[in-house]
Amino acid sequence: MANDQIERVVRLLARLPGLGPRSAQRAALAMLKRPDTLMLPLAEALESCARAVGPCSNCGNLDATDPCRICADPKRDPRTLCVVAEVEDLWAVERAAVFRGLYHVLGGTLRALDGVGPEQLGVDRLLRRVEDVGAEEVILALAATVDGQTTSHYLAERLMPLGARVTRLAHGVPIGGELNYLDEGTLDAALRARQPVGA
Amino acid sequence: MANDQIERVVRLLARLPGLGPRSAQRAALAMLKRPDTLMLPLAEALESCARAVGPCSNCGNLDATDPCRICADPKRDPRTLCVVAEVEDLWAVERAAVFRGLYHVLGGTLRALDGVGPEQLGVDRLLRRVEDVGAEEVILALAATVDGQTTSHYLAERLMPLGARVTRLAHGVPIGGELNYLDEGTLDAALRARQPVGA
Repeated sequence: MANDQIERVVRLLARLPGLGPRSAQRAALAMLKRPDTLMLPLAEALESCARAVGPCSNCGNLDATDPCRICADPKRDPRTLCVVAEVEDLWAVERAAVFRGLYHVLGGTLRALDGVGPEQLGVDRLLRRVEDVGAEEVILALAATVDGQTTSHYLAERLMPLGARVTRLAHGVPIGGELNYLDEGTLDAALRARQPVGA
Repeated sequence: MANDQIERVVRLLARLPGLGPRSAQRAALAMLKRPDTLMLPLAEALESCARAVGPCSNCGNLDATDPCRICADPKRDPRTLCVVAEVEDLWAVERAAVFRGLYHVLGGTLRALDGVGPEQLGVDRLLRRVEDVGAEEVILALAATVDGQTTSHYLAERLMPLGARVTRLAHGVPIGGELNYLDEGTLDAALRARQPVGA
């Protein structure tokens, strides 16, 4: 019953992850209550973002410059590569502010059933990059899910012959995590990888 | 760690109902993967919607014309008014396609603790409208929540002296609803308002 312009906004909003038809409608109405302070600024922000931002041709990060600010930073070590599935994972690692190498964004994980194979993820491009820069270490920072671990195993097998050190993120108790609420798999991993106190 | 343009989009998206900082980030990245088929079309749709659509000065509905298409429809009965809290409620009633009168959008319900009183909802404007059109019936189509029912009671007391018939939506078993999953309040209301079979 909404008019065409509202319908169009709702239809497009409903294509965003996390928004269904009803929540898209709520979002559209919330914006229509604040046309000048929310709806028009968002329209302008989306447009300038879409026009300015694109993937870094080196690592796949999203930025207004190509290469992105991380790849262009001379203080970062180009011979340590951190492989992540998505750009949001890159941001998550950056927030931790401990990694000083460069990234490689796969754009997903291997999911044979959905037709996502090594080709779709550009694995050959990663291997070439590892060779070209003479990478010393490749950190596989993929999710500890079945898809993430499958991808990790596959990449490790392809990367090992190239001579770089291949590592993965440690498994263990999350900081702030209570043992009582942890699954057995995590506790098992944390126990096996236990560390000497005061090391 | 996102660049300024992306940050701005995320910040604005996070102000929409139902989106937090994380889901706003996911939405922004999903759009950046489809700049030409999603992000720019949404920017354009938001802008044209914000510029074209506004509240109907008669009923509060949102439309590109004022009065809105419903108020301007000569086939609808202007002496039957359906009072709803929000524009989405108006749309919900329209979807049922049984109501042929006009609407009055309050823009909320009475919530004394949040400072929403009769003035904020423009109750006087509703009363004037009821008198001006010589309304025969005012249907209070407010939510069956505490706020909705409080507002209904208040409006009924103010409307009754004007001579119009004041009604409210029936309570009862939702179509498709299983008795086993219904609360006692609904079953109580449904029992009290039971109807002769075959009437």
